[in-house]
Amino acid sequence: MPTTTPTGGGRRRAAASVPDLVARARDGDPRSVARLISLVEDESPLLREVMAALAPHTGHAQIIGITGSPGVGKSTSTSALVTELRRHGRRVGVLAVDPSSPFSGGALLGDRVRMQDHALDRDVYIRSMASRGHLGGLSWTTPQALRVLDAAGCDVILIETVGVGQSEVEIAGLADTTVVLLAPGMGDGIQAAKAGILEIGDLYVVNKADRDGADQVRRDLRSMLALADRPEGAWRPPIVKTVAQRAEGLDEVVAKLEEHFDWLQSAGELEQRRTRRARDEIEAIAVTALRSRWGDVHGRSELDELAAAVATGKSDPYTAADELLEAFTE
Amino acid sequence: MPTTTPTGGGRRRAAASVPDLVARARDGDPRSVARLISLVEDESPLLREVMAALAPHTGHAQIIGITGSPGVGKSTSTSALVTELRRHGRRVGVLAVDPSSPFSGGALLGDRVRMQDHALDRDVYIRSMASRGHLGGLSWTTPQALRVLDAAGCDVILIETVGVGQSEVEIAGLADTTVVLLAPGMGDGIQAAKAGILEIGDLYVVNKADRDGADQVRRDLRSMLALADRPEGAWRPPIVKTVAQRAEGLDEVVAKLEEHFDWLQSAGELEQRRTRRARDEIEAIAVTALRSRWGDVHGRSELDELAAAVATGKSDPYTAADELLEAFTE
Repeated sequence: MPTTTPTGGGRRRAAASVPDLVARARDGDPRSVARLISLVEDESPLLREVMAALAPHTGHAQIIGITGSPGVGKSTSTSALVTELRRHGRRVGVLAVDPSSPFSGGALLGDRVRMQDHALDRDVYIRSMASRGHLGGLSWTTPQALRVLDAAGCDVILIETVGVGQSEVEIAGLADTTVVLLAPGMGDGIQAAKAGILEIGDLYVVNKADRDGADQVRRDLRSMLALADRPEGAWRPPIVKTVAQRAEGLDEVVAKLEEHFDWLQSAGELEQRRTRRARDEIEAIAVTALRSRWGDVHGRSELDELAAAVATGKSDPYTAADELLEAFTE
Repeated sequence: MPTTTPTGGGRRRAAASVPDLVARARDGDPRSVARLISLVEDESPLLREVMAALAPHTGHAQIIGITGSPGVGKSTSTSALVTELRRHGRRVGVLAVDPSSPFSGGALLGDRVRMQDHALDRDVYIRSMASRGHLGGLSWTTPQALRVLDAAGCDVILIETVGVGQSEVEIAGLADTTVVLLAPGMGDGIQAAKAGILEIGDLYVVNKADRDGADQVRRDLRSMLALADRPEGAWRPPIVKTVAQRAEGLDEVVAKLEEHFDWLQSAGELEQRRTRRARDEIEAIAVTALRSRWGDVHGRSELDELAAAVATGKSDPYTAADELLEAFTE
């Protein structure tokens, strides 16, 4: 077990096992992949060592974000997409981000049943991850979990989140390719979401295309997308119709995903997106580290003192922020 | 005009005017209030001076967040609430946060018409603020705008946002009291939102209570709220029915808002919430300042170099974050 305290011999023993774990994960051992992701999720003291060991092996996988309102058939579509990708011989990772409410303690989404079709396939790795907060925001460890799957040799990694507000923007930040799922008959939900989803999709999938209204959804979407002011050479997001439950249209989805990945590479956009993503990741880790220093003084912290002064009108937030930075950056 | 370059005589002239502006704002001059908020929104070089001048005059107002899905009647309710608060002699500020999509360039919400009922009332100050991004997230200058209205002598400040995802949580972080609006016939929207709204409301208002289904909404809400595990002495969020368009039920809303404010004070919760808010504010300003230092080197920044190394697998994000912090905190 790699869960050791970071002291003495325990550390040495555990440290020795990280390269082993990475080597085994790269050989396709699902238990080693699982263990590495657990180390990430638990923010293990070994996290830094894990990340350093994985780094040289990353950058291969196409990371695909899948988002859409509840009810559009995300889980079914993800599962059908996995099947299609396997037909093409791809090694596939799936991260399903479950927004579970701390209020109810239960998951908002539950039916991952179809994923079990792939349970015995060693070239499919499926993992549920906890979300940050009740709105399905991605945990800050999600990028690290992606690195594990990438280093483990996945050709494609699907991240599936519920599409409420912030999470769909976050997923677009993490993914090379963002797939937005829609379905007919979703009513107001789509209307409200439109402003957001039109900016993030690299590929739009109208699922449940055998139902009334599917063509209308596609027409609406097409005319709204046509309003976008895209420069010469920019990617024009295609719209694909599917019936995920009958596995219809998934071949075209896979074709468009490959087309987009080719475009990303040839346009130099892949490198840009990945550098931007790395930038965000580094910043998030640095800011988290600083925050813990700020709050980490025993008893009442420097920041608490400053906050109390601002709350009572004795100081203002800018002066307080200056004082905070002075205390910790000099 | 206080828009000057921060150099030489110009600065001195503008600097002299900040105390004047603050004094006039405190006398109830709406143009001075407007100018101060503009200085905040434009992140004027005078911002720090403005905040320092306002600080001693803050802490009086009850800040009330109003959130709810599109279609529940937020603008109408806000307007009717302003009228009722004026009947009680309260000085009222309203910040309406407009989620405008950078895609369409247009506002998602438009009808603020009813607000014009209050246009001639000097004791009502109404301001629209831009939101951050297309999902209606609050701008990081929103807390500063609240400070302006607070120092200007408002007894109550209403912040109205569209309730999509993140913004409703953000508003709960800013407000002393959070009002969640619901209405019958909103269908799936309410279902999807429920997990989130149950955690943030201090007061629930079922608007359009003359319509079919209002009692059902109240019953559902009541039984879901009853599941919450609230400690002895905790606030139990009441549910009030209104017909905002006919100004029905607003007296009870105002009564409950006052009751909640009294409870906040007697339970010591007000001080806690405000200290927590000040803490978040200070952190946000400090992190923003650090971020601009990181990105502020001419040409390619330190952070860009590190991000490129991580994106190409030459480094990992933790090592890069350590290097970033070392470069800027020593």
